[in-house]
Amino acid sequence: MGLVVQKYGGSSVADAEGIKRVAKRIVEAKKNGHQVVVVVSAMGDTTDELIDLAAQVSPIPAGREFDMLLTAGERISMALLAMAIKNLGHEAQSFTGSQAGVITDSVHNKARIIDVTPGRIQQSVDAGNIAIVAGFQGVSQDKKDITTLGRGGSDTTAVALAAALNAEVCEIYTDVDGVFTADPRVVKKARKIEWISFEDMLELASSGSKVLLHRCVEYARRYNIPIHVRSSFSGLKGTWVSNEPQGDQPMEQAIISGVAHDTSEAKVTVVGVPDKPGEAATIFRAIADAEINIDMVVQNVSAASTGLTDISFTLPKTEGRKAIAALEKTKDSIGFDSLRYDDQIAKISLVGAGMKTNPGVTATFFEALSNAGVNIELISTSEIRISVVTRADDVNEAVRAVHTAFGLDTESDEAVVYGGTGR
Amino acid sequence: MGLVVQKYGGSSVADAEGIKRVAKRIVEAKKNGHQVVVVVSAMGDTTDELIDLAAQVSPIPAGREFDMLLTAGERISMALLAMAIKNLGHEAQSFTGSQAGVITDSVHNKARIIDVTPGRIQQSVDAGNIAIVAGFQGVSQDKKDITTLGRGGSDTTAVALAAALNAEVCEIYTDVDGVFTADPRVVKKARKIEWISFEDMLELASSGSKVLLHRCVEYARRYNIPIHVRSSFSGLKGTWVSNEPQGDQPMEQAIISGVAHDTSEAKVTVVGVPDKPGEAATIFRAIADAEINIDMVVQNVSAASTGLTDISFTLPKTEGRKAIAALEKTKDSIGFDSLRYDDQIAKISLVGAGMKTNPGVTATFFEALSNAGVNIELISTSEIRISVVTRADDVNEAVRAVHTAFGLDTESDEAVVYGGTGR
Repeated sequence: MGLVVQKYGGSSVADAEGIKRVAKRIVEAKKNGHQVVVVVSAMGDTTDELIDLAAQVSPIPAGREFDMLLTAGERISMALLAMAIKNLGHEAQSFTGSQAGVITDSVHNKARIIDVTPGRIQQSVDAGNIAIVAGFQGVSQDKKDITTLGRGGSDTTAVALAAALNAEVCEIYTDVDGVFTADPRVVKKARKIEWISFEDMLELASSGSKVLLHRCVEYARRYNIPIHVRSSFSGLKGTWVSNEPQGDQPMEQAIISGVAHDTSEAKVTVVGVPDKPGEAATIFRAIADAEINIDMVVQNVSAASTGLTDISFTLPKTEGRKAIAALEKTKDSIGFDSLRYDDQIAKISLVGAGMKTNPGVTATFFEALSNAGVNIELISTSEIRISVVTRADDVNEAVRAVHTAFGLDTESDEAVVYGGTGR
Repeated sequence: MGLVVQKYGGSSVADAEGIKRVAKRIVEAKKNGHQVVVVVSAMGDTTDELIDLAAQVSPIPAGREFDMLLTAGERISMALLAMAIKNLGHEAQSFTGSQAGVITDSVHNKARIIDVTPGRIQQSVDAGNIAIVAGFQGVSQDKKDITTLGRGGSDTTAVALAAALNAEVCEIYTDVDGVFTADPRVVKKARKIEWISFEDMLELASSGSKVLLHRCVEYARRYNIPIHVRSSFSGLKGTWVSNEPQGDQPMEQAIISGVAHDTSEAKVTVVGVPDKPGEAATIFRAIADAEINIDMVVQNVSAASTGLTDISFTLPKTEGRKAIAALEKTKDSIGFDSLRYDDQIAKISLVGAGMKTNPGVTATFFEALSNAGVNIELISTSEIRISVVTRADDVNEAVRAVHTAFGLDTESDEAVVYGGTGR
């Protein structure tokens, strides 16, 4: 039996009862003979409350101080969790990100992990303790300041520690039973996936699936750390994310892993762009200089009669205003006709490594949408993903139609719980 | 203009408004040309809320984890305070006890400061920042674990930093205007003391005055750091505690600094102790082995007829049960008659270095009590203090009578605010 890293999100430790329930589960793993390292997020709404407090004293909280403030949240949850475990008769020690050796760059509020030096954690578990580590936080390499890792930070902490400690598995406990073939809030017959490859999981994560963030999966793939996503509320097995299926899981990969959707994006169309070299580059340099991340980019052949083309791209709705302002400034140098902005869109993505070797997947996808009366506005594909943009109003209908068309519907009536992730 | 250390207690930073008010005051000091280091306690009730949470997950919270938990409180207040200062256009950086170089022993929940290595703080203020330091916390020398300093810890942090940084003064901001000649809740005519010597302040602190704790004053005396205790709510000058009067303060020390009282103690009398060598030692060894701190000890001459004497001592009421149990065990070896326990007592102390050279102070003190009809049960004196034990019911009357008898009453009608200290 080797070392296991378990990560519990904020909803799992929202109150004293939750902390005690999680403590029991951790002790189970220890009793089963594992060395156990636990990564924990702040309790329930703690982070939001701290953000509120910051807003009350300063409209633009400074990065360094904001990180110092937010990390208080994990300090509370981890200390309480260690106490609860000790109360069950097992030894536990809590460690801040800094104490656990989570070394980051100096970009406050969204620092990236540079290195993990888990000497104290290894010592603690070797001495028979359960080690509890604050998620979401680290210490900057150059200035020794406290940093936070931004969205998905606690999951990334867990995977990074698992890699540094050569863990058998990184278990991500959350408030859902695992990764599903579609969002169960939209598709009642969505199925829990037993195993999914890192590649497919990465595509799902970037296509709107919120169970695991892209960053955490990417880290796990690089260091080949199997992730087991599961519920902290039920005793059920969840979803394994890894290079190869585990144990008795079917060796053959499903053709299609799942259908993801995303309604958080908007679409910008630059109308009437002269079809000559460098125009697209100018447009996207302007966007990049405004520090906006874009998602899909689509350009069609230009109309022969005019020599003009349209370029569309999608981006987070929150960045819409900034993008339009940045593009307006390039209007004279590029000479495009106009800008269109549309935030009533949805993106629907079909993900599966099997589509590489199975002709007809694209056709089936489009037929399903057509039969459901859903109009396609943009299309973009990667090797293992097809994404389309539709009207936002059509999204639920579209996801259900595609899910059924690819035989993903389950027959079972088991209830599933579904929610967002912590941080 | 040199470096100033300012300490703000929990009641001064109880909410966002309080934090903003304190931030303004800090910026004032900076604008006046000082380098400013601020020590801050946790906001208002934060600590109590964290203690409540701990009690919900474990009946006996472990020392190490309890300290990890509690230190979240200062992390929140210090980060918010730094943000509020930056919002006023001044640079500020917050530091944990560990970052500030507060090195302690490993006794969790009541660690003692071993050393202060304030390199980062000095660097920060030299770079023009206001440095905000978490009070009440440090890091253990051997294990590098987070520790807390126990009662009065934040004041002690402030004085220790002031000493390590060669500060001009350590300003302790609290919710009262300073140190008074008596508790203004009891004596309406109590006067704010402009200056008091370390020695007199130490006696007042150990006699029931709660504005400054003995530990903090002792530290300040050892390193000769002047303390200025003042209100964070008013702009008034407070009380200076130092070796010598400051500036235009009268050079001649008052005969009597003040009258303190304490109703938190109980009295134990060991009745019928054989008057022979070693008996008292056996009694107080039993008390010491039970880790109980005692205060006054009084033994009178034995009655010639019986060769027996009575030994009385006072101790915190909270330790009463433990003390009686410890003494019961020695009954056979000592052969005393019985134990008496009385928790309806008050201690009234008159403090002032001038009493050394002014005969008649003792007589005036006892006359004042007698005229007020207050019976004296025990008497104990030091070079600069006289303490008596009376009935608890008589305490207010007694304090007022003594205060008047020594000419301490003020003529002014200024309102005073009075409360407890933070931690």
